Amino acid sequence: SLDTSPIRATLFPGDGIGPEIAESVKQVFNAAEVPIEWEEHFVGDKVDPRTESFLTWESLESVRQNLVGLKGPMATPIGKGHRSLNLTLRKELGLYANVRPCYSLPGYKTRYDNVDLVTIRENTEGEYSGLEHQVVRGVVESLKVITRQASLRVAEYAFHYAKTHGREKVSAIHKANIMRKTDGLFLKCCREVAEKYPDITYEEVIIDNCCMMLVKDPTVFDVLVMPNLYGDIISDLCAGLIGGLGLTPSCNIGEGGIALAEAVHGSAPDIAGKNLANPTALLLSSVMMLRHLNLNDKAERIHRAILNTIADGKYRTGDLGGTASTADFTKAVCGHL
Amino acid sequence: SLDTSPIRATLFPGDGIGPEIAESVKQVFNAAEVPIEWEEHFVGDKVDPRTESFLTWESLESVRQNLVGLKGPMATPIGKGHRSLNLTLRKELGLYANVRPCYSLPGYKTRYDNVDLVTIRENTEGEYSGLEHQVVRGVVESLKVITRQASLRVAEYAFHYAKTHGREKVSAIHKANIMRKTDGLFLKCCREVAEKYPDITYEEVIIDNCCMMLVKDPTVFDVLVMPNLYGDIISDLCAGLIGGLGLTPSCNIGEGGIALAEAVHGSAPDIAGKNLANPTALLLSSVMMLRHLNLNDKAERIHRAILNTIADGKYRTGDLGGTASTADFTKAVCGHL
Ligand SMILES: CC(C)[C@H](C(=O)O)[C@@H](O)C(=O)O
Ligand SMILES: CC(C)[C@H](C(=O)O)[C@@H](O)C(=O)O
Repeated sequence: SLDTSPIRATLFPGDGIGPEIAESVKQVFNAAEVPIEWEEHFVGDKVDPRTESFLTWESLESVRQNLVGLKGPMATPIGKGHRSLNLTLRKELGLYANVRPCYSLPGYKTRYDNVDLVTIRENTEGEYSGLEHQVVRGVVESLKVITRQASLRVAEYAFHYAKTHGREKVSAIHKANIMRKTDGLFLKCCREVAEKYPDITYEEVIIDNCCMMLVKDPTVFDVLVMPNLYGDIISDLCAGLIGGLGLTPSCNIGEGGIALAEAVHGSAPDIAGKNLANPTALLLSSVMMLRHLNLNDKAERIHRAILNTIADGKYRTGDLGGTASTADFTKAVCGHL
Repeated sequence: SLDTSPIRATLFPGDGIGPEIAESVKQVFNAAEVPIEWEEHFVGDKVDPRTESFLTWESLESVRQNLVGLKGPMATPIGKGHRSLNLTLRKELGLYANVRPCYSLPGYKTRYDNVDLVTIRENTEGEYSGLEHQVVRGVVESLKVITRQASLRVAEYAFHYAKTHGREKVSAIHKANIMRKTDGLFLKCCREVAEKYPDITYEEVIIDNCCMMLVKDPTVFDVLVMPNLYGDIISDLCAGLIGGLGLTPSCNIGEGGIALAEAVHGSAPDIAGKNLANPTALLLSSVMMLRHLNLNDKAERIHRAILNTIADGKYRTGDLGGTASTADFTKAVCGHL
């Protein structure tokens, strides 16, 4: 096509180190001449009644319009009368699948080699329903809600992802031996979808056993799909295998093709503003955003530049045992483009 | 005291490899002249209406009388109208704390060195309430139940354990940022108990972060206390760090001083009856039972013999990459007494 007008994407720099690592992405995108025009949105300083959180209505509208965005860490302010920023985004934007590829970074040594798996987490229900109450004094209950609709949707996404990304196996992670109805329904939906993908191997692994297998030999896994809380736990465990949340990208997928890529690490207030933060997770997340937009050449080029910078080892930020600044690292990535 | 009459203890050899590894314990206890008289109980072949499971009423009565027992793996038969054997034991005997020490075995190399931690799991409620229902077609719910009583009880146990075992820190594992009421109550109880133990450091760690920290560096942890499902997940993860469930002991603690030590690995039907099973987990569990009975000299002696046999490396069962039989390994332990 001859249409060379840039694609508009929403950018939430976020808090703490967020603005610095977002700046890193902007510089790398400029250097790689990515045809993206950022629409920046900041977390507000008071609750917006339309979102019941510090997120402004306009910022959510921006993602809804652009259908694509990138998000840095957001620390939910403490206090009452508002919702967690991360959960508000997931809920309001219907971001039903959280996709986290996790792979060993050549040149950055951990206890594990050749990790290469993807966790796909149901992102809207389960243990995150928010439904809790006190039954009598000293007795409280939380509700875990599993629906056929959300389970089928995330299972579909996982199998489709496996198929389109050259993956061979999908493992559904569960505790249906205990939660027979909720996790049982989740598994039932996974099985239904699995039938439609005869070329993809399907297996079911109980969560406790899955965690043991992951620490013994993560290479036995390929794509993992699971309810919300298990995804929360297992994706962090997997990040730990390859070096931590500073190195793992993530992308949230919603209905209608919406995608919000996100660095899932914290806002690290202790090092904020000091040019010390590692921008890798946000950079790798931005690559996922580019792939979602089918800007595959740009994505590949930036991805390779990030991996080469890490493999090179000359410019490493403090979290990886080096002394490079955020700006040094960013410059090195641009140099590797 | 001059009372030399043996202590009666209930033994559930269990299924699959259970009888072989139980035989190993009996031989080692004989060789070490442990003053224990076993009262053996087997899982029945039909549902006992008084327990609603294949466990007989008599077998539960035996533990209630003896106040102490040792249990091999039990595979719950598939079918309806009865309860899981493991859960029935926990519930009927009020086994509220599951204690799993996890330490690197000298001479058995994994990716991790110097692991030395203890997980203490609330064993009676939480996600294991068994309360589930369908709300409408395609929408199911499970109830997680947290009570002040059970949380205080397990927190008390954890801090008491830390104090009496020379441990310095208790970490409460939770997801109270999401399950504010249930996990929030659990934390509140832990904090209350922590106040009574000023010499023990107390910290709170979110479960996803905990799993990441465990795979990055498990030596930062000491004693971990947590609700039921988190304990299920984290104890298996920890076992994986040091080689698997075949090497980790466990003991369930109930009200009134009751204790049921237990190997938590499966019944391994594929190798059952072939003299191939590794009896280590059950042997180490039997050591926990002896400690509970204050038979500390015997416990120490047997413990050292097991560790020396593993360190020695000459007699290793197949799961550890060796070719020794269950009998070979057992003989080696007896030889090291
Ligand atoms: C911050 C927290 C609410 C969030 C979660 O539990 O989902 C985080 O751990 C994550 O994985 O994105
Ligand atoms: C067999 C199963 C019900 C059990 C549990 O989930 O508690 C097991 O995983 C355990 O840890 O003892």
